[in-house]
Amino acid sequence: MTTLTAETNPADEDKDALFAKLAARFGDRFSRSQALREQHANTLTWLKVQAPDAVLFAETTEEVAEAVKACAAARVPVIPFGTGTSLEGHLNAPRGGLSLDLSRMNGILAVHEADLDCVVQPGVTRKQLNAYLRDTGLFFPVDPGADASLGGMAATRASGTNAVRYGTMRDLVLGLTAVLADGRIVTAGGRARKSSAGYDLTRLLIGSEGTLGVITQLTLKLFGIPETILSGVGTFQSLEGACNATIAALQMGLPLARIELLDEVQIRGCNAYSHLTLPESPTLFLEFHGTEAGTREQVEMFAGIAKGEGGGELHWAERQEDRNALWQARHDAYWAARGLKPGTDLIATDVCVPISALAACVAETKQDIERLGLLAPIVGHVGDGNFHVMPLIDPADESERARVQEFLDHLVERALRFEGTCSGEHGIGQGKIGYLAAEHGLGVDVMIAIKKALDPLNILNPGKIFALR
Amino acid sequence: MTTLTAETNPADEDKDALFAKLAARFGDRFSRSQALREQHANTLTWLKVQAPDAVLFAETTEEVAEAVKACAAARVPVIPFGTGTSLEGHLNAPRGGLSLDLSRMNGILAVHEADLDCVVQPGVTRKQLNAYLRDTGLFFPVDPGADASLGGMAATRASGTNAVRYGTMRDLVLGLTAVLADGRIVTAGGRARKSSAGYDLTRLLIGSEGTLGVITQLTLKLFGIPETILSGVGTFQSLEGACNATIAALQMGLPLARIELLDEVQIRGCNAYSHLTLPESPTLFLEFHGTEAGTREQVEMFAGIAKGEGGGELHWAERQEDRNALWQARHDAYWAARGLKPGTDLIATDVCVPISALAACVAETKQDIERLGLLAPIVGHVGDGNFHVMPLIDPADESERARVQEFLDHLVERALRFEGTCSGEHGIGQGKIGYLAAEHGLGVDVMIAIKKALDPLNILNPGKIFALR
Repeated sequence: MTTLTAETNPADEDKDALFAKLAARFGDRFSRSQALREQHANTLTWLKVQAPDAVLFAETTEEVAEAVKACAAARVPVIPFGTGTSLEGHLNAPRGGLSLDLSRMNGILAVHEADLDCVVQPGVTRKQLNAYLRDTGLFFPVDPGADASLGGMAATRASGTNAVRYGTMRDLVLGLTAVLADGRIVTAGGRARKSSAGYDLTRLLIGSEGTLGVITQLTLKLFGIPETILSGVGTFQSLEGACNATIAALQMGLPLARIELLDEVQIRGCNAYSHLTLPESPTLFLEFHGTEAGTREQVEMFAGIAKGEGGGELHWAERQEDRNALWQARHDAYWAARGLKPGTDLIATDVCVPISALAACVAETKQDIERLGLLAPIVGHVGDGNFHVMPLIDPADESERARVQEFLDHLVERALRFEGTCSGEHGIGQGKIGYLAAEHGLGVDVMIAIKKALDPLNILNPGKIFALR
Repeated sequence: MTTLTAETNPADEDKDALFAKLAARFGDRFSRSQALREQHANTLTWLKVQAPDAVLFAETTEEVAEAVKACAAARVPVIPFGTGTSLEGHLNAPRGGLSLDLSRMNGILAVHEADLDCVVQPGVTRKQLNAYLRDTGLFFPVDPGADASLGGMAATRASGTNAVRYGTMRDLVLGLTAVLADGRIVTAGGRARKSSAGYDLTRLLIGSEGTLGVITQLTLKLFGIPETILSGVGTFQSLEGACNATIAALQMGLPLARIELLDEVQIRGCNAYSHLTLPESPTLFLEFHGTEAGTREQVEMFAGIAKGEGGGELHWAERQEDRNALWQARHDAYWAARGLKPGTDLIATDVCVPISALAACVAETKQDIERLGLLAPIVGHVGDGNFHVMPLIDPADESERARVQEFLDHLVERALRFEGTCSGEHGIGQGKIGYLAAEHGLGVDVMIAIKKALDPLNILNPGKIFALR
C-alpha cells in the first residue's frame, strides 16, 4: 500500500517568520492565544486535542488564497475550520499549523428563486441559511445534528434526517470555489442542474475533508417548502419491525421525507432531556411532504404498513410548533444521550449498510453492546440504512475505553461484512483512518495519488483521511 | 495552462509484438480487420473517423486488466467501447491503439430487490436491464436516446428524459469496479446508499470518458415502477410559454417525472417519422408518476399552470401502448430530425443552463439558426435546463460547415454567458475540448493533474477531454 509522507516539517524559525508576517498583515484577526488555539482543535470526541499553532479569521477567498500561499511557502499546515462540530478529529493539528477560521465568511451572496439555488460563503450555517430563506418559500434540507457551517458540511459530505428524500451534500452542491494547496483559486461545477463537462471536481472536493482544497464558496440546490408537512411518531414492538416497515415503505415508492429510528435507550434519554413521555420501545420519527391530499394518502399507506410490522398507533403533528418540538428532540439526541450518564464522554460514531441488512446489523450491534457491558444508544437515518451508535464512556475507566475500542472495531467489521461503509456521514478524519483501508483497499492508493498530485507538500489538513508518516 | 503530453508513441515493432501476443492469447476475440476497426471508431457525428489498430472483445474484468497491462507495457492506447453511440468522438483513436469492446460483458450479476439496487457488467444496455427487471416491479430510469451500454453511460455521465425526477448517472451509480491505466483493479463506492468514507472515486470515474479507468462493473440504484404513470402532450403558443410553465411547475414542487420540449421544427420531423399529427408548435411531452390520486392531482395542477402560459388542451395517455408510442417518438427525435433533410449529416449537440435562462437562451439560439440559414430542430430536457440542437448539414457544402461551426461556438458562448455548461449530457470527447477550457479555466489544470497522476503514460483514451500534444 502506498503511504503518504508528510513534507510539512518546517523549522521553528520559518514558522515564526510566517506567523510574524501573518500578524502584520491581518492584525487582530490573527492570534496565537492558547485559549483560541484549543477552541479550534477537536473537542467533541475522545481523540486527544492537538491544537494548531495559530488561528486566522479569513474574510474573503483572496485572503484564504494569500494565507495558504504563505503557509505553503513556509511548509506550514493549514486546517480549515467552520463551526468546530466535526466528530472524527478533523480539526486537530497533529503537526501544528494554522487553523483557518472561515466563520466570518458568512454571507449569503445570492438566492435565485426561479432556479431553486443559492450562492453562499462557507461560514454560513444551515440554520442561518434557512432563516434567511424563510420569506422565499424555499429551504435547504441537509441537517446534521449540529448547526454546522455549509463549508464544513460540504467538506465532510454531511447529510442528516432529510437525505432519504432530498439527498446529501454530495447531491445538493451544484458548484464551488476552492483554494488549492498552492494558493490558486479554482471554481468547479456551476449553476446548471447537470453537466457532463470534464471530471467532477465538485464531487471530488466534497468529502475531501480539507485535504485537497479550502472551500470558500458554494452554490446549493434549494427546494420549495412543501404545501403540507406531517410529522409523526410510531412505537414498535421490535427494532426489526421498525426496520421492516421502513423497507416496505421505500419499496412501495412512498416519498418519505424523514424516517428516523431511535432505540429504547435513546428514547429514555430523549424523554428525560426533551421532556417527552414516549414509551421506551424502538420508535420511528417520520415526516411526509407534499400536497394536503398527497400527505394524507402517504400517512394512510404508512399506517397500514406499520400495523403489519407490529407498530402501535401513529401520532401525527401537523402544527409547526409540535413538529419543531419533535425534530428538536431528534436533533438533540446527542445531548440527550450524554444526559443518560452525566460526567461521561460520548463517542458518536456511524456506519451505513444496505437497507435489507439494517435490522440484522442493528441487532448484532445491540448484542455486542450488551456483551461488552456498554451504555450506547442507537439513532438511525433508517431510510438510508445509516445508523449512529453513541457509547458513553467514563474517561477514567481504562477497561471501558478498551471495550469501547473493541466495540467500534466490531461495528465497522460488521458494517463491511454487510456490504456497507465505515462512515455514513461523519467522515474519516483521524478516527477512522484504519477502517478506510479495510473498506477501500487499493482505492486508498488512488486517493493518495490524487492527494499527492494536488498537494505535493501535504500542506492541507495533514493526518486526516490518510495516516501521517 | 497546463497541457497534457502524449507519452503513447510506440514504435511499430512494439505495437506488432503486442498485437501478436494479444492474438495468441485471445484467439478470434482479437481482430485487426479493417471493417471491424472502422465500426469501432466514431460514426454518429461529423468528426473524422480515426479507427483503432485492433479490436479486442473482453469478457471479464481480469481480461480487461490483462489487456490494459499489456498495452501499458507497449505504450499503446486503450479505447473502451460499449455500443458506439457516443456523440462527441469518444471512440476515435487519434493515435491508434486497441479498442476494448465490452459489449460481451453483458451479465446482470445481481438484483437486490429489497435494497433497490443491482450489479451489472458494463456491456448491459439500458433496455436489456429494464427488460430483465420487468418481473421485479423495479426499473432503471436513465434513458439517453440510444440503447446505450450502462458502462458507456457511466463513463460519459449520461442522463435523459427522467433526470428531472430520478437524476443522472452521477446520482444513480452507487459503486463501480474499474481497471486503472497500469492494469490494477480498483473498486469504488459500494452498496450503501451513502458514505463519507474518503474521496468520491465513483463520481471521479463517472464522466471521465475512459481516460482514468475502464469501468468493468457497476452497482446501480433502482426504483419501483410507479402505481400510476400518466403521459401527455401539450401544445404552446410560444417557446417562452412552454419554458415558463416548466419553471412554475418546478417551483411548486410538482414531482415531474419527465418534461420534454420539442420545437415546431422537431415536431414536423416527428410527425413525419413517427406518424403523429401534432400541431407544428412548441410542444411539451410530459409524464407524471405516483399513486392514482397523486398523478391526477399533479395533472390538474399542471393543466392550470399551462393554461396561464398560453398552453392548449393537454392530451393524456394512460394506456401503456399509447405511452410507449409517445416516448418512442421522443427517443426517435434524432432519426426524425435526420428525416427532415435526407442525405444530410446531423450534428447532435447539447448545452444546459439555469432554468430561468432557458427561454432566453433557446430564443437567442433560434435567432442564430435563422440568421445563419440553418435547419436545426431543438429538443430539450427542460426540467433540467438542458436542450439539444441538431443542425443538419450537407457534407459537400463547405459554407454550411463553416456556418454550423460558427453556430456551435455561439451556442456554447451563450450557454456560458447564462451561467450554464458546454455539455449537459454528451460529454467532451474530441468535439468540445476547446469549450471545456472556456468553461472551467484553471479547473482543467486540476483535471490534467489528476489524469497525469493516474495515467502518467496517457494510455487511456488519449485525445479525449484534453487536447493531444
